[in-house]
Order: sequence, then structure tokens, then C-alpha cells
Amino acid sequence: MAKKITSRKQDYSQWYNDIIQHADLAENSGVRGCMVIKPYGYAIWEKMQNELDKMFKETGHVNAYFPLFIPKSYFSKEAAHVDGFAKECAVITHYRLKNNEDNTIVVDETAKLEEELIVRPTSETIIWDTYKKWIESYRDLPLLINQWANVVRWEMRTRLFLRTAEFLWQEGHTAHATKKEAIEETERMIGVYATFAEDFMAMPVIKGLKTASERFAGAEETYTIEALMQDGKSLQAGTSHFLGQNFAKAFDVKFANKEGKREYVWSTSWGVSTRLIGALIMTHSDDRGLVLPPKLAPYQVVIVPIYKTDAEFKITDNVAIEVKSKLEKIGVSVKYDNRQTHKPGWKFAEYELKGVPLRLVLGPRDVQNKTIEIARRDTLEKNTYDIIDIEVKVNSLLDKIQNNLFNKSLDNRHENTFKADSKDEFIELINKGGFVYAHWDGTAETEEKIKQETKATIRCMPLDNQQESGYCLFSGKASKQRVLFARSY
Amino acid sequence: MAKKITSRKQDYSQWYNDIIQHADLAENSGVRGCMVIKPYGYAIWEKMQNELDKMFKETGHVNAYFPLFIPKSYFSKEAAHVDGFAKECAVITHYRLKNNEDNTIVVDETAKLEEELIVRPTSETIIWDTYKKWIESYRDLPLLINQWANVVRWEMRTRLFLRTAEFLWQEGHTAHATKKEAIEETERMIGVYATFAEDFMAMPVIKGLKTASERFAGAEETYTIEALMQDGKSLQAGTSHFLGQNFAKAFDVKFANKEGKREYVWSTSWGVSTRLIGALIMTHSDDRGLVLPPKLAPYQVVIVPIYKTDAEFKITDNVAIEVKSKLEKIGVSVKYDNRQTHKPGWKFAEYELKGVPLRLVLGPRDVQNKTIEIARRDTLEKNTYDIIDIEVKVNSLLDKIQNNLFNKSLDNRHENTFKADSKDEFIELINKGGFVYAHWDGTAETEEKIKQETKATIRCMPLDNQQESGYCLFSGKASKQRVLFARSY
Repeated sequence: MAKKITSRKQDYSQWYNDIIQHADLAENSGVRGCMVIKPYGYAIWEKMQNELDKMFKETGHVNAYFPLFIPKSYFSKEAAHVDGFAKECAVITHYRLKNNEDNTIVVDETAKLEEELIVRPTSETIIWDTYKKWIESYRDLPLLINQWANVVRWEMRTRLFLRTAEFLWQEGHTAHATKKEAIEETERMIGVYATFAEDFMAMPVIKGLKTASERFAGAEETYTIEALMQDGKSLQAGTSHFLGQNFAKAFDVKFANKEGKREYVWSTSWGVSTRLIGALIMTHSDDRGLVLPPKLAPYQVVIVPIYKTDAEFKITDNVAIEVKSKLEKIGVSVKYDNRQTHKPGWKFAEYELKGVPLRLVLGPRDVQNKTIEIARRDTLEKNTYDIIDIEVKVNSLLDKIQNNLFNKSLDNRHENTFKADSKDEFIELINKGGFVYAHWDGTAETEEKIKQETKATIRCMPLDNQQESGYCLFSGKASKQRVLFARSY
Repeated sequence: MAKKITSRKQDYSQWYNDIIQHADLAENSGVRGCMVIKPYGYAIWEKMQNELDKMFKETGHVNAYFPLFIPKSYFSKEAAHVDGFAKECAVITHYRLKNNEDNTIVVDETAKLEEELIVRPTSETIIWDTYKKWIESYRDLPLLINQWANVVRWEMRTRLFLRTAEFLWQEGHTAHATKKEAIEETERMIGVYATFAEDFMAMPVIKGLKTASERFAGAEETYTIEALMQDGKSLQAGTSHFLGQNFAKAFDVKFANKEGKREYVWSTSWGVSTRLIGALIMTHSDDRGLVLPPKLAPYQVVIVPIYKTDAEFKITDNVAIEVKSKLEKIGVSVKYDNRQTHKPGWKFAEYELKGVPLRLVLGPRDVQNKTIEIARRDTLEKNTYDIIDIEVKVNSLLDKIQNNLFNKSLDNRHENTFKADSKDEFIELINKGGFVYAHWDGTAETEEKIKQETKATIRCMPLDNQQESGYCLFSGKASKQRVLFARSY
């Protein structure tokens, strides 16, 4: 078989690419930095979308859709925002092609736009231009809207799922009457992300605040969830921004409060993207391929029949169909691979690569004994079970896998979380990989210096951080708390 | 109340715009030709997506995602295709903005793309460039993939939902080993669209073939579903294209057949878009506002309590909550509007405008009598019912509304479908509005002439068309069948 996966030890980065390729998740397209999300990868995204969408709606949000294009003048209205995004914008300048004399297709120079359009890298500006028309009084607030969309950021160094020029995401944009409500919303949504990461992705995360220099361009405060990958790097998996009145001021959005006084609106925005698929891969997978938590697996169970003769095929086929239907009745998603064109060994390897949580194998002897073999993808354990209450067994195993994956990741994080109390120790730990808690003097200068010297950044100031006096490892100045450092994706 | 709807008689086009505005479906954005789909309009699209997606999956399709951008050179590979779309393309030429000396934001001329990128108007070219890598042998076929995406066509005259520069749609792209299979797929998918239109949108459609001049750019055959709107114009609601081997040849996609011989792949593509929302509005709505078929209504039932005192509110509130929960248990979606800030009369008008199929009104006397008032949006009938088996009643009424809307539209189509047997009669009927069956000589010249003289186009050659000898009304030449003419959106 040509589908060989490089081991993590040998080359972690190649291991990641091999998994994406051989599990059929995505590939690079002919367009620089843009990926094709293949059906199996997209099925994971659909599962993520379904769960997140449910959680957004349960917290009172509705979906809407805003234009892909943003006029340059809108984009420029919030100063910090345009500074943050101007260097990575795809710009539309023309709206027509034509046939040249030599019969090649060229841009029609007579069809030049008066004002260039930016392909949205994020939608605050176009949305706040719209909210201006929707918000008049406190009765129109809060406005709790989410959008599922594609966005474009012209990244120079791209990586499938982790950093691509175009990616898919959701972006929530909310408007509130008070600062307090907006901050509550910002915190509620980082909480939703953390719950999703831990309960569905089985990926433990640390909730915290970004430092000023790592904030979203235009935000007053950025909340993040950070997860530790198997190579000891941190991955920012979702962010929620308290935008203060910045966009309301830039787009002049005021509301009449209960006393009839006009005030600027308070706002938030929050998003997660297809980057989560990269995080999912790097959190659980092993040297044999992808490992998926049952709650996000496109199919949770694969059934492979074993047979030599047509008669044997018929016997196993009957039972397999019955098992499939029993499992589907309790909501388990099942792929029954009865293709005669592929051998069982090929199928075993294929579904292992694709991270299907449980593999059920059924041969003629199993049918005779009323048993079935079940193999777990996470632990690779195989056992033979009575077929009579197969749905109870499968259900319980799926729960076990979901929990096991979370606990394994949590253990990994605990084993790779350290405290550094000197500069040398800090550098040694950062080089080793992992989360490092250390004192920092709170200045952007020192933060930048640490980044230059060690390639580590402050991932966040954890929300549940203990307060503790100490001294900055790099400047020696006083510090009130340790912050979380790591190298990152 | 400021929300007055122009009557259809007075100004059909303004009536359509009024409904979109007052039912909060969509609005024009600050970006030329691009719309904002508001939460209530987007909720209808989500309902449509859910049902269509289920139908696509039931017919064996999977979803994937391909890049938003298409290199100009790909786009040019299929000659008819580029001719069809070149004149309405948004073109990306640069990938960075910068701060000018005068502190304005301008395009950074040093960041010019070597090859321009087109924002996809449809994805055949980028997808076939990808399929080339995915297809090697007959074992890889059929490839049955769908994409939910935004596309951009730089239309000069735009209309909310019906014709916008950016719109949302799905596009299926399939690859097959034989011509027969590809044609079967093309027909299967126009069938899926027809079923969706009739069973969910309650909109009767005529399935047929487009003439050569109305075909999709790059197709060998285009199947369409055509629906008659209330003003007597036809609306093309979905198309399915048999692409022959055109894209396979343009992108050199061959497969090894069972005998090991390499052949070009056969293909199809098919799509429906947010245009369907425009069709839905124009099929059922009336001078009081939007009318929605229950199967696509964001909420099927609204409950409005009537009360004067707090005590009365409490009584009705208790019962309303109980009714809501009973209805939700059987899968009915319910909005309970217990806002004290708005009067019942305001609420009645609002939900009538928004086309909610059933309005349940509950006052203290109803509570005493164990009754509830139900008003149908389609017929405006009001009746008082026992509350005891409310869920049975509501369910049956929702079914009745769904059927009534379909039958009403079908009646409307029957009343406005004609045969013309002379040129004068044809012109009179076309001016009157409606579907006109007439003989045509089968040439593109005559088709164009008819279009110029009457503004009518051949909507399709219906699939179930009777064969019948006759003479073309415009050229006098022999004809074997009548084809379907109308003015159209």
C-alpha cells in the first residue's frame, strides 16, 4: 500500500500533511494558498457546524448573510482594523474580461471599478454599516447575529486548515445597549467555544485574555481558547472580542436609550474556523493515521464483512444489515463497506487511516456463534462480543472513546505544562515544547523581546489565573501573575 | 403603521419590494448589486438548504468545498464557458493595500498578481482541474459531489433575490463513466428540484429542455424547471446540465475503463440558488404580505396572548406555554410572542406580513372555555377550537395550508396557460401574461426574432410534451411540437 504515514517523531510536520492526504481530508488547489476541502474533511466540518449552530441558537443568536465584498472606504473607517488587515487583502479592481485581438482572455480595462472592493477578511465593517440602518432604539437591542461564510486573508506561508488564504468560518456580530452586556456576551461565547472544544472535539482548552499586542485589530479585549498540540505547540482555536464602542463610533451607530438619550452601541464579535479541523487532527491522531472523537466522526462505526464464498457473503451480509439498522435506530452513524472489489485488509487499513472510532468485523463463524469483533481506533484493542445487545455495547464504547480521548489529551497537557522561574529555565522549557507559566512585567516591549529571543508568545492570561507576586524573567521588573507562554501555530 | 404594502394590481414590482422590505427578508447593501439577507429571510434559506441537502444525500451525493477564486487561465479553457461568463466577472488583481503619504488607504501597486483571479461565477473549471487528480479508473466513478457556496456574477440590473451580483447557491458536479449514466444523473437532479419545488415550496413547475441558445455555457443539454408567477411571468427555478465530455476534454480528464482503455469522463452540473426565495414570494404572497408554505416557514405557528391585567397575562401565559410545548413535541415550530411592549394588533399585522401560516390567539375567556382562536394566513379564515387536542388540529391545518397553496398556484397556472395558433393571438396572449404553447420551427434565428418582437422567450420544451404537427407562427415552417413561451424573470 502506498499510503504510508511518516511518524511524529521522524517529522511532525510531514506526519500532519500525510494524515490530511491519506485520510482524504483536503489538498492544495491550483490557487495559491487556497485549499480544496475533500468530502471526508468537509463531513467533519459539517458535524462541527451542526453542533456549533445549535449552541449559537440556544444562546439566542440567529443567522444572516452579508456581502462578500467590502468597499475600500468602509474598510478604512476603523483605524486599528485597517492597519491589522490591509496587508493581506484580495482586491477587486475590475468587473469584466474580454477577448483580446490575439484571442487570449484579458481584463477589460474599460470595466474598472471607481472604488476598489476588498474580499472580506472579516465582516465588522460591512456589518456595522448595515447595523446603522437597523438600530434606532434600545428596543432593537441586543442584536445577536451570526454568519457562516468564507473569508480571505492573503497569507504568505500557508498550511492546510491551519493557515489558508481562503477559509470557512462563522463570525458572530452582536450589538448591545451597555458595556456590561457586551462583556457578558463576549465571555458567554468564549465559554461556548470552550464547551464545544472540550465536549465535542475532546480537546482541553485554556480560556484567557490576549495581551494588547495580540488582540484583534479593533478590539478592546480579546478572549481566546488555547489548546496544546502533541508537538508542544499551542493552537489558538477560537476568539471572542469585546469591541467596546469602536465600530459604533467608526460607523456612527447610536441608539436612543430608555430616557431617549442617544448613545453609541457596544459590540462584540467572535469566530471559529476550519482551523479547528487542524486542531482536531493534531490533538488525537497517531502514527497510524487520523483519530476522531465519536461526536464529530462522519461515521462512528464501520462494518467489514469477512467471507470466502458467495454463500458466506450472503450470511454475513444479512447479519451486517441487521446490525447496521439496530445501530442507526439509536442514532449511531454507520458505514457498511460490503464492496467486493476491496479486501478486508485494505479496508482495515483505510478506516484506521480515516480514524473511524469503531470497526465491527463479522465472519461466518461470528454469525454461527452470534458474536462480532469490535476494534477501538483509539486504543487499538480488539474484543469479541455477543451480538445480541450490540447497540448497548457500541454506545458504551463510543462514550468511552470520547472520554478517553479527552483524558489522554488532558494528561498530555498536564505532563507538558511547566513553571519557569529563571530565564535559562524558560528558554530550556520553551525549546523542549509545552505550556510555560512565567512572570512578565506587563509591557509590550518585553513581550516583543521574549518573542524575538525565544519564538515564544504569550498565549493568554488565563481567566482563572492565580494572583502571585514575582519578577519578570526578562526585565526583572515586578509582576502580579504568571502568564501562559508557548510557541504556537 | 408605516408598513404599507403596495397592491399587486397597482404596481407588481413595488409589491415585491415592499414584501421583502416589510417582512424583513433582505435589503440592498452599500456594495453595488450585493444584498444583505436578513435573519428572517436567511431562516427560509436554511429551511430550503436542510431539505435539499437531505435529498442530495439520499441520492448518493456528498458535500465538499472548492476555492472561491479561479485563475484566469483555467477559466479560459472551455471556450463556450468563458464566452458565457467573461462579461460579468469580478477580477482580483492585487493582494495588498497600503497607507499613502496623505494617509489614505490605496492599492499597493507592488502587490500585483502575476495572473488575475476570477471570483467564481460557477465552479466547473476549478472543480474539473481538481477532478483530474481524483479520477484514474472506473473505480473512482461516479463522483457525486455538491458544494454550498457563494458565487458572483456582475449583473448590471439587479433585483433582490432574483438577480444579485453575489448570491448563495448549491452546485452539484458529477463525473460518470458513460453518457447514459450522466444523462440519468442530469434527469434525476431536475427531478429532485421539481419534487422540492412542488412538495416543499408548494410551487408547481414544468420540467423541460432549454433550446440551444438558452443552454448553460458549456452544456450539451440544459434541463430546467419553470414556474409561473402571479404576474404571468415565468421564473427559471433550477437547472441541471448534461455537460457531455466538454469539461473532461478541456481539462484532460480521462479514466481507465474495465478493459483498461482510457476514455474521457462524462459530466453534469446542477444548481439552485437564493433566487428560490424570490420565486417563493411571488408564488404565494398577497396584498397583505408574505405567505409561506408551512414546510418552509421559519415558524409555522405564532401564539399571541390577549390580556388587560397582570392576572390575565398570567392565566393566558400559563396556557400558551403549555400549547407551545405540546406543538413542539410533534415537531411544529412555534413562536410565542409574549412581549408586553407590543400590542396584539401590532403583532397580528406583523405576523401576517411575515406570512406565518397559523396564528393562535388566546384570551382569558378562551382559557375559561378551554378554547383557542386559530387564524389561517392563506385563507384568512378564523375559527375557535377546543384546546384539548390542539396539536391534532394544528397539524391538520398545516397540511391543509400546504396543499391549498399548491393547488391555488396550480389553478392559477392552468388559468393562465394558453395555446396560440396565430401570430396575432400569440402576441395578444404574451401581452396578457402567462404560459403560451405555440409551434416554432426549431431555429435560433426565429427564436431570436420572436424575442425581439415580443420579449417572450422559449422557457422550455416540456419533457412530457405531446408531439403534434403544425407550422411556426413566425416563419410558417413546419414544426413537430409546441414549445412553452413566456416573458420571464
